[in-house]
This record gives sequence, structure tokens and C-alpha cells, in this order.
Amino acid sequence: MPTLVLLRHGQSQWNLENRFTGWVDVNLTSEGEAQATRGGELIKAEGINIDEAFTSVLTRAIRTCNLALEAAGQSYVPVVKDWRLNERHYGGLTGLDKAETAAKHGEEQVKIWRRSYDVPPPPLEAGSAYDFKADRRYAGATLPDTESLATTLDRVLPMWEGEIAPQLKAGKTILVAAHGNSIRAIVKLLFNLSNEAILDVELPTGNPLVLKLDDNLKPLSAKYLDTARANPLPVI
Amino acid sequence: MPTLVLLRHGQSQWNLENRFTGWVDVNLTSEGEAQATRGGELIKAEGINIDEAFTSVLTRAIRTCNLALEAAGQSYVPVVKDWRLNERHYGGLTGLDKAETAAKHGEEQVKIWRRSYDVPPPPLEAGSAYDFKADRRYAGATLPDTESLATTLDRVLPMWEGEIAPQLKAGKTILVAAHGNSIRAIVKLLFNLSNEAILDVELPTGNPLVLKLDDNLKPLSAKYLDTARANPLPVI
Repeated sequence: MPTLVLLRHGQSQWNLENRFTGWVDVNLTSEGEAQATRGGELIKAEGINIDEAFTSVLTRAIRTCNLALEAAGQSYVPVVKDWRLNERHYGGLTGLDKAETAAKHGEEQVKIWRRSYDVPPPPLEAGSAYDFKADRRYAGATLPDTESLATTLDRVLPMWEGEIAPQLKAGKTILVAAHGNSIRAIVKLLFNLSNEAILDVELPTGNPLVLKLDDNLKPLSAKYLDTARANPLPVI
Repeated sequence: MPTLVLLRHGQSQWNLENRFTGWVDVNLTSEGEAQATRGGELIKAEGINIDEAFTSVLTRAIRTCNLALEAAGQSYVPVVKDWRLNERHYGGLTGLDKAETAAKHGEEQVKIWRRSYDVPPPPLEAGSAYDFKADRRYAGATLPDTESLATTLDRVLPMWEGEIAPQLKAGKTILVAAHGNSIRAIVKLLFNLSNEAILDVELPTGNPLVLKLDDNLKPLSAKYLDTARANPLPVI
């Protein structure tokens, strides 16, 4: 039976500082490392054998993937790293903390960017310290300079359809270790959620969400492995 | 210019106990983790950008690969995990320590197995606790039940020719994080060493060996990044 395990990366340094991170390659805190390891232990305790794992090209997700696989005793599982599973690109907000953003753009505007489905923040300014286009991990890719959740989904979609869904349709058990918004994009696709409903879905960090799917990848069941830290899920 | 970085995994628990490990999936010690991280720091300090990494399906090599890439700030590099880069399979010696092996087979015989190019130890006994054939990471592979260095090279060779050499010939910089004997096999191929000469080559653990190669993958230069812990190398 196709099984998808979604794992949101653990706490990073900038989560802690409440800054817009997006594509900045911030590392996990030691708490974030512990969350990833705990996620892997839960996967092991549940008796789940991962066949293949997918993650982004950002260190915090890759390390979450590696630490979880290690803790599950499954380091040998193939891992695909792809920028299309990156966090949402926060454009011109990248690097700002909450207070700086509010001072620059106003509280109301920030709320719109945070809580709307398809309104992207202003693009990253030319010459910004956060210009990712020169980074060799993105060589050959056409990159955005800002994203809404809608455009995040637009680039997750071909990755999902081209690489992840075919493995699931072959009956495999797949781990996706990624970010709040790239995982949201997958949840929206799987549960066929409206643009409004997806905004209320937020996975806890480091808590594996196990989805059993039918042959058409329609969810049959959804369960968090750490039941004490379970957020509400879409109704199946 | 094709560049190959060979990295032998750091200390494992059974290295410490002096037991024949082979394919048993023993983890790194904390010293072994530190060696891997130090290896990655040296790669970073040398300004080496890895394009692709290859490792075995054994945790101690995979973790060495991951820790080195993390320390180099290059976690995003694709990593291929393949059993053909595993350590030599020690057959019926697997799990025995030096004293046990000598008591069972005699000192002289053990020296022959350790120091010969093409004499394999007796095969793993049926029903052994170290029967790797049921392990899902080897599903579909035809596995040996003992190996000499010669037969280790026989299975490294198609991996080298089919997957690693083509990347090098494309001018890439490749990291191979593997084991004493799978790395020896590669060194024998590269330097065209005799069956006797290869037995004298032993890479220090966690010390990246950087080989610059010509377009036919003939070594032009070889250098350890930790010069204080450099073992003798074949003459180029």
C-alpha cells in the first residue's frame, strides 16, 4: 500500500529568532537535531521501512532527513535532494525579523503576506545578500525571486508528479523531509483542499505524519506518530 | 580537471575492539564522527567543491559522507549509496576478534587471509547471525559470502566504470567515502598497482586524499589534506 511519511524539519536558528528564512541556508539548533532524531525513532518504533526519501537542498531539511534515517536504522535508504522541495521563498522579507518587517511594511501588510494563498511579498532586491542565483546548488534552475504559497505549489507540483507520486503508485513507502510550506503544497494536492483551507494546516516540527494512500493516492488514513503533539488534520 | 577525493570512514566501535567487521553495520564512535567532521573541514579549507558523492550502504561510511559534507557546507551534494562500495566481506571471520580468530584458525592462517591478495576466508556459515542476504538493503543483488581483496575489486570495478569514472571524465569533483578495502580497490585501478603493491597501501581514517587526474583518469597528483597523518602513497 502506498505510504507517505511527511516530516517537517526541526527548529532552526532563525525559527528561534523569528526571522523570515525561506531559502537562507540556516542550520538546525540542537533542539532541532533532537526533534529529527526523535522523529526517526518514532518511525522505527512504528515498524515503518522507508524505500526512498526526498528532501530539499537546504541544510536544515537534509540534516533532518539524515538524522531521522539514522535514528530509524535506515541510513542506507536513497535520498533525493531537490530545490523544488525548498521552503517558500520570502523575497524581500528574507532575513527580516517580525519587528523589522512590521516597521518596514506595516502590520496589516505583513499579515496579508503571511495569511494569503497567492499574494507574494516584494521580490528580493537586486544585490541582496540573499541572492541565491549564484549558489552552485541552483545551477541550471530557473529560480523565483519571491513566492506565495500558490507559486510554491506550482514548483512542488512537477516534483511531486514526476518523482514522488510514481514511487508511491508503485506501492512504495516514501519519506519527504521538507519545510512548512513545501509540505503544505503536498497536503493541498493530496487532500484536494481549497486555497483557504490549506492556510489552516500546519504540521508540528519533527513529528512524522503517516498517510496511507489508495492506488490513486487518495488518503485512506492520516496519523501523527507523536500523538501528544498532533495538530488538526484535514478530514478524509 | 577530474578530481577524486577518497575518504576512509573514521573509527567504528569494532575497529576499537579489533573485530573483523566487513559487512556488519557497526556505527562510528564519537572519535569516528569527529574524524569525519574534521575531514569535511579540511575539504572546505582547501576550497574543494564536491559535485557528487558516492558511499556504501553501511552506516559508518554513509555517516562519514554526511558529516564531511555538512562540515564542508555542502550537504546539498547528491549522494549515491551502493553496496558495491562496501568493505570487504570477511566471510566466516565476521564478528571474531583477533584472539578468537587465532584460536580457531591459527595465527599463520589468519596472516594469510589478512595479507594475501586473492585468498578469501571460509564463507559465512549458513544460519550465521551475520547473514546479510535477508537484509532489504541488498534486495535484488547477488551477494558474496566471503571475499578476498581480488573479489572485492571485482565488484567495485563495475561501480567504478559504470558510475564514478564517467562523472570524473566529465570533469567533475567526486567524493568517495568508503572503507579500507573498497578504497584500496579504487587505488589499485587508478595507479595500476600490482597485486603485491596494493597490500602496502593503507589510507589513514578521516583524512581526505585528493587526486587530480588527467582526462584518462591517470593520476597527476595525490595529496592528503591532513599532512600530519599522511601514509605513504604509490609513486605517480
